[in-house]
This record gives sequence, structure tokens and C-alpha cells, in this order.
Amino acid sequence: MSQVSEARLQQYEEIAAHLRAAIRDGEYAPGEPLPSEAELCRRFETARGTVRQAMATLRNEGLISSGQGRRSRVLDTVPSQSFDGVISFTQWCVSSGITPGQQTQWVTRRPADAGLAAALDIPDRAPVVSVFRLRLMDGTPAMVERLNYPLEAGQHILSFDPDSGSIYQRLLDSGVDIDHATRTIDAVGATAEDAALLEVPEGTPLLRVRRRAFTGEGTPVESSDDRYLPDKASFTLNSIRGNNPSSVSMIHGEMAR
Amino acid sequence: MSQVSEARLQQYEEIAAHLRAAIRDGEYAPGEPLPSEAELCRRFETARGTVRQAMATLRNEGLISSGQGRRSRVLDTVPSQSFDGVISFTQWCVSSGITPGQQTQWVTRRPADAGLAAALDIPDRAPVVSVFRLRLMDGTPAMVERLNYPLEAGQHILSFDPDSGSIYQRLLDSGVDIDHATRTIDAVGATAEDAALLEVPEGTPLLRVRRRAFTGEGTPVESSDDRYLPDKASFTLNSIRGNNPSSVSMIHGEMAR
Repeated sequence: MSQVSEARLQQYEEIAAHLRAAIRDGEYAPGEPLPSEAELCRRFETARGTVRQAMATLRNEGLISSGQGRRSRVLDTVPSQSFDGVISFTQWCVSSGITPGQQTQWVTRRPADAGLAAALDIPDRAPVVSVFRLRLMDGTPAMVERLNYPLEAGQHILSFDPDSGSIYQRLLDSGVDIDHATRTIDAVGATAEDAALLEVPEGTPLLRVRRRAFTGEGTPVESSDDRYLPDKASFTLNSIRGNNPSSVSMIHGEMAR
Repeated sequence: MSQVSEARLQQYEEIAAHLRAAIRDGEYAPGEPLPSEAELCRRFETARGTVRQAMATLRNEGLISSGQGRRSRVLDTVPSQSFDGVISFTQWCVSSGITPGQQTQWVTRRPADAGLAAALDIPDRAPVVSVFRLRLMDGTPAMVERLNYPLEAGQHILSFDPDSGSIYQRLLDSGVDIDHATRTIDAVGATAEDAALLEVPEGTPLLRVRRRAFTGEGTPVESSDDRYLPDKASFTLNSIRGNNPSSVSMIHGEMAR
């Protein structure tokens, strides 16, 4: 719970924050039931509707079971991933206790081909800045990263040493607005280029994460393609019966970009 | 919005439901801003805090942008996936407009090996029911499915023709409680067995989805391994800055099961 926003929290949010902290601190262990609604009403001196809103919030986060017809229980925790960790390999590594690294192959300004122009919503052949890096986890090859930016955002990278750290941080520091992102996850075989950098045979299965990031106004600011060695990263998610629609969906082939 | 629960909806939930429907119906198109908070307060005759709760709910679902410092905009819609669609390939196909199919390779009762016993939280060598099927999308090979159940749940499948339809529906009809599930997504090469069924070369990259399903009390009722041809399925997700922790996380290799 951030200090800044605390004053504006709704009561149900405060209760959710208390319960979330109690779960994270192990006061309620995985598999254990939470206190009953009646008990929580007494403890927080509030109405049942407010307690139910707090429980619905925790369910949305995949922290507790459905509670349909019985007490909600704490689920095995899926570590949460911050927005920074979604966009930035560096941030994701740091929050996972891993030392990130990179070996930049090239940074280039070039005209966008048709596919990239469509992904970035810019005219064909408009200039883009592209970065190709091998990423390391604790010094070991883990991922090949292809980042592409329209020139307005990308110009901040042309004057940056991409071996010195996080491009994402550089963009934020330069005032680039990165508001939301869409990721598509699938599997792909290593190309000759991928294989040489990752030190595996060509065709080795890789976990591919394609990402488009947008400003608050919906203008694309990044189109990227990350390919992980399968023993280096996976995705995990909880789903709870009766929950609201989740923000992740499995998409059939014809619908995927 | 289900008819049953409508009477118990909080006001913010009603407003969220109205806005969700308006987005789904195209009244607010992707890229367009939602009305201002002041306008929504007037329209729904409610307080600003309530409108903010409704907006936070939509943001949690990946439907609108962060709104930090400006109006929230409608994002490109990620189709929502129901809990049924998470557990059941049959349900997922139907909701995607695809005709599901299956060719059962075998159904067997056997003793659990150590890995499966651990996943199902049962003693080593305790009996399990296992199903191995090729799954089809519109008549074409798409996925190899390995399902495993402890005997108490699995007994309902031994007396069922697995080529006749959904095992998940059979389990629900038999009163098996499936309350929540955890999925792990990664990439794997096709084994000889996978490759023969999917009609691709051995080692072809496949999108693997391993799933554990649990009762409301947290007892495992299923441990499964689905492997999709990469052109048949992918995962897509929205992430929004400043949002609550999402229920999906990228996990580094050592932490993944």
C-alpha cells in the first residue's frame, strides 16, 4: 500500500491490503481458510458487503479460492509481477534475485518494414530504432531480445550505451510515456542467429514473448520479440471459479497476430 | 452479470458492468476515451469514489488504460477466458467458434510414479486414472493431452467413453469439486509420441500448458500436460501501469515446478 495513495483508499481496499499482507507474511498459510465473513466484519468493524468486496479483490489477484459454498482458502502464492517487470528484463531479473546482463549485437536506425510499421502504427519505411541483444541471467545466456521503437522514442536510445543498463529506465528518464502493454506468448524454434547466441542447436524450442507497449493515448511506443531458453523462464497463473474475466487468455491460431 | 447475483451487486459493480457491456458492444471503441469521472458521476448519480472503484475493476480486467493524469481509454480487447475454458479444451474450442475433437489413445488405471504422486499429493504408487488423447480443432491435429486424476475423481472416467465428449463435464456431472487451477506455460520439443500424433517432426517446438486443479479445500483433483502446435494456440495478456498485481507471472527457471 503506497503511502501517497493511502488517504484515498476505500475501506474495502484497506481490508484487502490487511489480508494481503497477512497472507504474504504467512499469518494465513496456503491451504488454510480465511476467517469467516462474520469474524472479518467484527474485526474490521464493517458491513458484510465491504468484506465481500475485499474478498473479491483478493480472488481477482489469484490469492484465495472461490469461497462458493464454503470459506475461502489461501492458494499457493504466485509471485506477483509488477508493470516494470513486464516491460523490463532488467527489472524482472532484479525482482527475481537474478543478476541481469546483456551483450548488445547492434543498435540501428532503419526504415520499418511493413510488419513493423503496422505493429507501431507508423507509415511504411518510416524510421525506427532497433536493438538486438543477448540477455544473460547470472552471467549465462538466457534470452535473445529484439526491441523496436518509433524514432520519437527511439532517439533516446541512439545516444545511450545499451550495455550500460536498462533501456526501459532510459526511456522513462527521457519522459517517454509507457502506460500499458499487450503480450503474446507462444513457442518457436531457434533461428540460426538465436541458436548461435544462446549456444544451443538450431530449432531448439524457445518461449517467445512478443510485446507491444502503448502511451496512455494508445499510441504504440514499442514492438518487441523476446525468446527465452525454456529452462530459464515460464509463465504461471492462477484461475478461480466464478472469478471476473482474467486479463490473460489463450487465443487460437487464426486470432493471434 | 448473472441474474442470481444481481441483487447483491455493489453499486460500483453495477457501474463496471454497464461500462463493460458498453465496451463489448462497441459503444466505446478501442483507443477512445471513456467519459470523464465527473460525467460518469452525473450519469450514474453517484459519488466519485464509486466511479473510481468501477474504473479500477475494469483496469484489473485489462479493459482500459491507467488513466494516470488523463482520461482512461479503451484498450484493444483481449477476449476473456472463462474458468470452464481454462480447464476444458472442449469448452475453450466452443467459446472460440471451433469444433473440438479427440482421438483417445488410452485410458488406464495405474500406480502413480513419484512425480505424479507429488503433483496430486497422494502416496507413491497410489492408484490414478490417466487419459492420453490427441485433440483436434476443426478436424485437424492441434494438441496432445495427458490427464491424470486420483482414483476418487478418476473412477468417473473409467466408466465413460472419452471419445464421446468433455471429461471435465463428466467430472462436474459426477459431483467432483473443481474450484481453482494453476497453470504453468512454457515451450518444449515434441517427443516421438507427440510428433507421430501431431504429424510433425520430432523436436518441433510446442506450447506446453501444465495444469493442476484443486477442490475448494485445496486438494488436487487433476494434474495435466497439454502440448499445442504453436500455430494453434498462444496466450495474450494486457498489463496496465499502476494496476494491482496480476494473476499471471513470468517465473524464472529455478522456481518453476
